[in-house]
Amino acid sequence: MSTATATKRIYFFGKNEGEINPSMKNILGGKGLNLAIMCHIGVPVPPGFTISTAECISFYDNGRKISAELLAEIRENVAKVEADMGLKFGDSENPLLFSVRSGARVSMPGMMDTILNLGLNDVSVEGLAKKSNNARFAWDSYRRFVHMFSTVVLDLDHHAFEHMIDDLKAAVGAEQDTDLTAENLKTLTQQYLKYVKDQGKSFPTDPYEQLGLAVAAVFTSWHSDRAVKYRQINKIPHDWGTAVNVQAMVFGNMGETSGTGVAFTRNPSTGENVFYGEFLMDAQGEDVVAGIRTPLPIAELERVMPDAYADLVAIYTTLEKHFKDMQDLEFTIQDRKLYLLQTRSGKRTAAAAVKIAVDMVEEGMIDKNEALIRVGADQIDQLLHPMIDPKAKVAVVATGLPASPGAAVGQVVFTAEEAEVWKNEGKKVILVRVETSPEDIGGMNAAEGILTARGGMTSHAAVVARGMGKCCVAGCAGLKISEKNKTLEIGSKVYKEGDYLSLNGSTGEVIDGQVPLISSELTGDFGTIMDWADAVRTIKIRANAETPLDAATALKFGAEGIGLCRTEHMFFEGDRIVAVREMILSETLEGRKKALAKLEPIQKGDFLSLFEIMDGLPVTVRLIDPPLHEFLPHTDEAAQEMATQMGVSLETVQHKVHQLHEFNPMLGHRGCRLGITFPEIIEMQARAIIGAAIDLKKEGKVVIPEIMIPLIGTVAELKMTKTKIVKICDELVKAAGIQLEYTVGTMIEIPRAALTADLIAAEADFFSFGTNDLTQMTFGVSRDDAGSFLPGYVEKGILKDDPFQVLDQEGVGQLIEIAVEKGRKVKPDLKIGICGEHGGEPSSIEFCYRSGFDYVSCSPYRIPIARLAAAQAVLRKKK
Amino acid sequence: MSTATATKRIYFFGKNEGEINPSMKNILGGKGLNLAIMCHIGVPVPPGFTISTAECISFYDNGRKISAELLAEIRENVAKVEADMGLKFGDSENPLLFSVRSGARVSMPGMMDTILNLGLNDVSVEGLAKKSNNARFAWDSYRRFVHMFSTVVLDLDHHAFEHMIDDLKAAVGAEQDTDLTAENLKTLTQQYLKYVKDQGKSFPTDPYEQLGLAVAAVFTSWHSDRAVKYRQINKIPHDWGTAVNVQAMVFGNMGETSGTGVAFTRNPSTGENVFYGEFLMDAQGEDVVAGIRTPLPIAELERVMPDAYADLVAIYTTLEKHFKDMQDLEFTIQDRKLYLLQTRSGKRTAAAAVKIAVDMVEEGMIDKNEALIRVGADQIDQLLHPMIDPKAKVAVVATGLPASPGAAVGQVVFTAEEAEVWKNEGKKVILVRVETSPEDIGGMNAAEGILTARGGMTSHAAVVARGMGKCCVAGCAGLKISEKNKTLEIGSKVYKEGDYLSLNGSTGEVIDGQVPLISSELTGDFGTIMDWADAVRTIKIRANAETPLDAATALKFGAEGIGLCRTEHMFFEGDRIVAVREMILSETLEGRKKALAKLEPIQKGDFLSLFEIMDGLPVTVRLIDPPLHEFLPHTDEAAQEMATQMGVSLETVQHKVHQLHEFNPMLGHRGCRLGITFPEIIEMQARAIIGAAIDLKKEGKVVIPEIMIPLIGTVAELKMTKTKIVKICDELVKAAGIQLEYTVGTMIEIPRAALTADLIAAEADFFSFGTNDLTQMTFGVSRDDAGSFLPGYVEKGILKDDPFQVLDQEGVGQLIEIAVEKGRKVKPDLKIGICGEHGGEPSSIEFCYRSGFDYVSCSPYRIPIARLAAAQAVLRKKK
Repeated sequence: MSTATATKRIYFFGKNEGEINPSMKNILGGKGLNLAIMCHIGVPVPPGFTISTAECISFYDNGRKISAELLAEIRENVAKVEADMGLKFGDSENPLLFSVRSGARVSMPGMMDTILNLGLNDVSVEGLAKKSNNARFAWDSYRRFVHMFSTVVLDLDHHAFEHMIDDLKAAVGAEQDTDLTAENLKTLTQQYLKYVKDQGKSFPTDPYEQLGLAVAAVFTSWHSDRAVKYRQINKIPHDWGTAVNVQAMVFGNMGETSGTGVAFTRNPSTGENVFYGEFLMDAQGEDVVAGIRTPLPIAELERVMPDAYADLVAIYTTLEKHFKDMQDLEFTIQDRKLYLLQTRSGKRTAAAAVKIAVDMVEEGMIDKNEALIRVGADQIDQLLHPMIDPKAKVAVVATGLPASPGAAVGQVVFTAEEAEVWKNEGKKVILVRVETSPEDIGGMNAAEGILTARGGMTSHAAVVARGMGKCCVAGCAGLKISEKNKTLEIGSKVYKEGDYLSLNGSTGEVIDGQVPLISSELTGDFGTIMDWADAVRTIKIRANAETPLDAATALKFGAEGIGLCRTEHMFFEGDRIVAVREMILSETLEGRKKALAKLEPIQKGDFLSLFEIMDGLPVTVRLIDPPLHEFLPHTDEAAQEMATQMGVSLETVQHKVHQLHEFNPMLGHRGCRLGITFPEIIEMQARAIIGAAIDLKKEGKVVIPEIMIPLIGTVAELKMTKTKIVKICDELVKAAGIQLEYTVGTMIEIPRAALTADLIAAEADFFSFGTNDLTQMTFGVSRDDAGSFLPGYVEKGILKDDPFQVLDQEGVGQLIEIAVEKGRKVKPDLKIGICGEHGGEPSSIEFCYRSGFDYVSCSPYRIPIARLAAAQAVLRKKK
Repeated sequence: MSTATATKRIYFFGKNEGEINPSMKNILGGKGLNLAIMCHIGVPVPPGFTISTAECISFYDNGRKISAELLAEIRENVAKVEADMGLKFGDSENPLLFSVRSGARVSMPGMMDTILNLGLNDVSVEGLAKKSNNARFAWDSYRRFVHMFSTVVLDLDHHAFEHMIDDLKAAVGAEQDTDLTAENLKTLTQQYLKYVKDQGKSFPTDPYEQLGLAVAAVFTSWHSDRAVKYRQINKIPHDWGTAVNVQAMVFGNMGETSGTGVAFTRNPSTGENVFYGEFLMDAQGEDVVAGIRTPLPIAELERVMPDAYADLVAIYTTLEKHFKDMQDLEFTIQDRKLYLLQTRSGKRTAAAAVKIAVDMVEEGMIDKNEALIRVGADQIDQLLHPMIDPKAKVAVVATGLPASPGAAVGQVVFTAEEAEVWKNEGKKVILVRVETSPEDIGGMNAAEGILTARGGMTSHAAVVARGMGKCCVAGCAGLKISEKNKTLEIGSKVYKEGDYLSLNGSTGEVIDGQVPLISSELTGDFGTIMDWADAVRTIKIRANAETPLDAATALKFGAEGIGLCRTEHMFFEGDRIVAVREMILSETLEGRKKALAKLEPIQKGDFLSLFEIMDGLPVTVRLIDPPLHEFLPHTDEAAQEMATQMGVSLETVQHKVHQLHEFNPMLGHRGCRLGITFPEIIEMQARAIIGAAIDLKKEGKVVIPEIMIPLIGTVAELKMTKTKIVKICDELVKAAGIQLEYTVGTMIEIPRAALTADLIAAEADFFSFGTNDLTQMTFGVSRDDAGSFLPGYVEKGILKDDPFQVLDQEGVGQLIEIAVEKGRKVKPDLKIGICGEHGGEPSSIEFCYRSGFDYVSCSPYRIPIARLAAAQAVLRKKK
């Protein structure tokens, strides 16, 4: 977006007057535009004016000075407000006061400065006291103004003012600020002004001088350190600038006929179509949220002040109809007259977002496409997992990475074996590990939740837990875990085996003891949104799944096939690991084949049940991927256990572990490289896959097996591997005397594969982008080790997002685009998908859609997110 | 190259007749073309004809059948040879025999089949006996022909024939084949023919049938397994096909007026311009090389047969003039008549290549450019290192990778410390390690050579050894090393500390005991070649060097600057490692700064001496690159030692080691990522570099420091790092009150950096491609772990070369081209170089030249290679 180019410096808003073209947002900012719109459609708003964002840029171009032209226009607009309000700026009888607020194109909450009650001085404060018949209110407003102006504009230390009020309270025996009398506050204000003078600053008494300085201060705050950093992190251009809203002050604290409140046009938690909010009579805005007095529910306002309530209802209905969205309102009643101070789209929970979107379609307010855009794809994850009762009080003892959403409560155990034992005894457990390995899979499955001290968002624990839809907090650096002593130290607190912990996988919080959980339900509205999404989206959604449970969950959530079945996960269960290790220990081809012969029927059984569950939907089976050492024990104890179990010496096991050790296993002897060195392994897998497919086909069932070869870097690897597999498969099919279609494709997960995709496409039936590894290699970052610097990168703004969560379109995306283009050039109908973690992340899904993918594949629990995100991608492109 | 398109099927060659257009090589093959050329320029060659390569293709297209048209043309050409020779094919009186040999466009030695003495049968053998007056010779020729034809054409088992001759020798009490009489050989031949019949095969007696089948057999051998594999490995297209040369047999074994020999037109070992070779009278070609009779030096021929010798001298002079290169000849004298059977460019040592090239320029035979092309750039490595006396008998006990050329003899030691101790005692040692680590650097420097059991051509040992110009054999898998027992087992042999071993780093051979070494000298001719190369090349050659010794060596070899000074190598020597470890152990910024303050003056001293030695040439200094754990001990003993030395507990050391442990250090917390987490480290380095430059500048010296930031993946990293460095440097320069130019650039070694080079170029003064890491990441291959599969990849033809030795232009090259294009688009004068291992490899240097690089940087000992390769690249592009 280019810098706003304003046609005038200041835009007045008042009764039925204001700029309402949505494109004006760049010039007026979000807050300014909405104020203008409200004025234009007849909503009562205290009049005022918005100084355009372009003036902010001019301010900087002009050496941080307000131009004479702008000052002149400010005067003209102040005069207009005076006329509108029937008051006079800084007057001794009938004073008009202003609020001065920032307002950028997009909301930057708390990043820039605000000044209220501007226009007060020793003269006008008396006018305010007289007019409000409330000297205390007048002096309180004045002392707040002096405090605010002195710190924001005159750059004095905030603490000095705090000290003065504390000293005064001590001197007069006041507990609260509210215990101070008008006289006390007058004294305080005078102390403030003396302090300012003592610091060598001059406090302006001329209201126009106050206003000019305040506007300059707001402009200046656009380049405050925190604002600059916020923009870096959120990729907001620095040259947008901020607008300044100068608005007449109205007061809800002018006695019992005044009041103030905040409200939502619908319930922001549930989405229910009822007016929702709180108010206080004789109060100012900050009192509603301060908690000193208990606000009343908005419905009470009907009883207290029926006319104002009726006005408010009429107004909120108007606003919702105008903005076609649930609104978050701020209002003030001054002497029975209702004013709206702000309106904006209201933040809402996922459940509310879904309900409001569906309701508004039914009410004819928006169409289905708009409804789809309204629900945050990432947000609906909330709806798919149990969560901590938001009303519960929790004691957070540590915070790690929110690795897999949902919540869990259970007793602490320190090994996967214990997790399974305890689970069998009917206990709920939290598995606490320094880090998990594939050996822990049974224990992870048995646990309610998983907590690790090391590893990132895509560590083993995180990936597996998300796949299981199980809560996980990973990389919680504050933990000191002793597996030997069975203790977990967090700060000074020590948890022993059996102690209770709770986890919030959506926030990364580790919570002391047991917290109450609630399970969200997939309501009918949710199903409706999914149906609408399916009607719009054009790319298929598949699941990464290997167990029958995963597959069934995936189907329940609407998967249209399996995009990634990781066969090595099937190598750990029960006796399988014994046969796998026998294969690894063997030094001869015959020995390996003997061990593999034991695995083959088991693998075949795996595929039989997977194919049956998926019932005619395509299933992409990836051949063995991890380096063989992942199947060997990692500790001396485990090595001894394995030696005993296999009837070999400890030295034999240790020698093999040593022999297979790798410095960088991520870049080691794995993927298709294994099959090239040991073809017998993948040949066994090919027989198991096609054997299972043949059995089902003979029963008249539909099976669509897709064999996927991992870690291809050169077309020669693919050709050699594919030739071996096709030979075996064709022989089996021929021997069975049936017709069976199957395809053989490849993962694109090595940069070189993407770069030579034209050569590779000639040998591949499909491409599936393995964006986890592709990201690791393209960035040169190991996701298992990135914890030591990657969080700092995101914090410092070097990276906008963790590239393992959100696909790096700028870098990794280029390789994907190169590969798609080169692949389709050679094979125009090449099927293309993604099976990395990014397949379930909305912005990454949008990238896949734009790049011409046929499908995305993600963990079962993210399928609804992917369905919605895929629809939103279509709608956004149309825009 | 496209498939040859022949205009006729067969090309006759005979006296003054033959096709001599060099473009005919595609059709005639190398051997066929040279035979034709010899005929054309009047060299006596037995006449014959070449069947074109296109016929080989037709043969396959035709279902492996010789077409009737080809057979007819063969008959016509046989008739022509008969006329020329005055003999008749397979005649009982005056028999003409043929040799049938393959001959492809490029030599594929031993890959395809040959048949000699074709045309013999029970009738013509008698004619041969009569005409030669040598029945034994005739029957010996016949039995050889039957044996050869039966195995090559009739596909019978070679061993059956060996058994029959062995049985016969035993029966008649013959020691050698030569002890068999004519009668014995006749019996044997008859046994052979019976055996063929018993196997159900029919042995053709018709000479034309023999010839047709032999030609078909040679065509068929083009697709033999070994030939196909050879072509895969050497990337020779399968559709080239082979030609077949059918040539009249002449015999050197027809008594004392006949003979045969091989000769080189110049000495192939020294290059000396003297006729060089051997001959035997009354002998066949194979007798010369078989070693049963000792051949005579070629000069003796002048005495034995002055006329033939005079003819030969005239001919070799003619041939050398024609081909303008040293020739390797085969000749036969049949009854005083000299025939040339083959001529080709002779293989030669590096020394000979240099001398011949320079001599031929002086003789006016070739120009300087041609001379430069004639010397193999990779070959001259031989000239720069000591080597094993080629006359010595050596006992090779194991073979590893030829990781760093040269040779070494010494006593075995097992630790770096011992290597240094023994060296100080005046002993020469071979350092034997499972693998080396940066801690071993002192010991490696002290050793004559390094032998490791693990690691590839770019392992730590290999890279460091090459940098030092020190002999290294790496990844020698057969070794069993016990550091504890101080033993090295190779097979059944056990070497203890102090036992002697020799290494040949150019072949990877490990040799028992002490072998005599000779040191090659850089002759004047070598200098001449280098001067000519420098005049032609356009890219600069720099060195990877950090020590004064490296830098001095680099200068001696002609380096024009330092392209890579690895500062971390400077962190290991002496007390430095203590300060480095103190820095790592510190948990506070102050602690780290305190430790770094100790390092700073030492680093500054390093740069002072480096800048002084390089005396005004540019020096690129790379900031710290390896992960911090590389500076920590790797064993418990070393950890205890460090704890004692630093006065901390063993647990503290172990905890830090554990804390910094990485799963994939290659993709971990290193390079610029360290400087972002711990800016104080690179700030210290910046102060040391610029501080040293300022000191020299003040003395009036010229210094060109170039600061290089490693492992950049995003422009934000570069910008943040550069900003910190520039601030410090500018402050120092300003404080010194002098003018100092320095540049800040980046390595391009992460795929993402190459892909986003346009963004990165905006912040970089130069790019230096780190092709070691770039190759690792682009391939997804860790060079430290690749030993388990990469050698198999090269063997199976999946990769033509080890991509860590020869730049992968197809994959990694694409990223380089993308980066150069994007970088120069933003900054047209961006300086671009390479500092990976590939910077010293000829084909990679050619790629860099074609891609528009400004310089290549390589280890000091490869600089002459790089100078020559850079010149050759220019010359090849011109062609």
